[in-house]
Amino acid sequence: MKATGSTGISGDPARICGIGLEDYIRKVRAFHGYAAPGMILGGFMVDLAVSHIPEGMLFDAICETPKCLPDAIQLLTPCTVGNGWLRILSLGRFALVLYDKKGGEGVRVYVDPSRLAPWPMARDWFLKVGPKEKRDLEELVSILCKMGPGPLGVQSVRVEPGFLRLSRHREFSICSRCGESYPKDDGPVCLGCQGQAPYSPVFPLPGK
Amino acid sequence: MKATGSTGISGDPARICGIGLEDYIRKVRAFHGYAAPGMILGGFMVDLAVSHIPEGMLFDAICETPKCLPDAIQLLTPCTVGNGWLRILSLGRFALVLYDKKGGEGVRVYVDPSRLAPWPMARDWFLKVGPKEKRDLEELVSILCKMGPGPLGVQSVRVEPGFLRLSRHREFSICSRCGESYPKDDGPVCLGCQGQAPYSPVFPLPGK
Repeated sequence: MKATGSTGISGDPARICGIGLEDYIRKVRAFHGYAAPGMILGGFMVDLAVSHIPEGMLFDAICETPKCLPDAIQLLTPCTVGNGWLRILSLGRFALVLYDKKGGEGVRVYVDPSRLAPWPMARDWFLKVGPKEKRDLEELVSILCKMGPGPLGVQSVRVEPGFLRLSRHREFSICSRCGESYPKDDGPVCLGCQGQAPYSPVFPLPGK
Repeated sequence: MKATGSTGISGDPARICGIGLEDYIRKVRAFHGYAAPGMILGGFMVDLAVSHIPEGMLFDAICETPKCLPDAIQLLTPCTVGNGWLRILSLGRFALVLYDKKGGEGVRVYVDPSRLAPWPMARDWFLKVGPKEKRDLEELVSILCKMGPGPLGVQSVRVEPGFLRLSRHREFSICSRCGESYPKDDGPVCLGCQGQAPYSPVFPLPGK
């Protein structure tokens, strides 16, 4: 069957978490800004992970890279950075874990580079081989759509008890330097006023 | 005017980044899972920040807390964690910066606790005073909607050149232990295999 539409997706009625591929790509564009290859691969990864967890299980997520994959998780699951159900660890691997909030049992989905051999263009992109500028993004997205979950692996994992979320009620203070509130145990002034803010100096807005 | 609807919003036609309050709360529920007070306050913060940056400026975002506020930024601006235009720094302050991608000039919006005095319920929630369980979330959301940008401050900032995003092309390797790809300069094996993954042990799925 011939490739159709702007994404070049073939007639394969593949779906990602119940959404048609074209619809998913529309959502990706609206949220992520563009149809990034990592969001296409990431969509198949989230779909595969979700299909392996028991229905109705309340799960949290770990994302092992800050690049693209967190947005696929945020788009397709209830886990977001801001609600605390998604935590990003910069382990440098394109992988995610969905796990039971309470017990820690879960599944990990990762990319197995050895299974990328049939798709050299996807392999080069994934392993960052060759110049980025020369890549045809549209063609790459089309290939990733056809590849689907092919290069993905699934593992059963148990998240360490120490990592499971504690609902800790930190006490807050007013910082004597900036006047804003901050967690009291950060020290006598807030971390921003301790020099950790990456901006300086701070001016009042003109006319304020 | 009497409070109306499930959110208790008064007739005030307040808008957040061009969206009516009720619509914004619907989007919050769909993305964040529930109408968290931090998302309401966060919505007004993003709206105020956006109103202070020049039209058409390509901006990146810094969020000084991982709690709630990153989701307001992700919902209302093109900046997400996964596309790299939003970076979260755990400075413990409920504040955000939107800044010019290239030059670093931007605006910071923060909450001024001294201006929360007229709203004791919002103040107690914001400063984490009193037991969390006793809070009437619906009433709090309604108060935050009425409060709007009242307690917010705006500053002009310049983000440090060293923090402005560099498009660095890291070289990737295959980890000799797990077989996955990882940034070569992380060491002889990936950070996960160096013991930084918070799960163990990893089993193959039954029947795989």
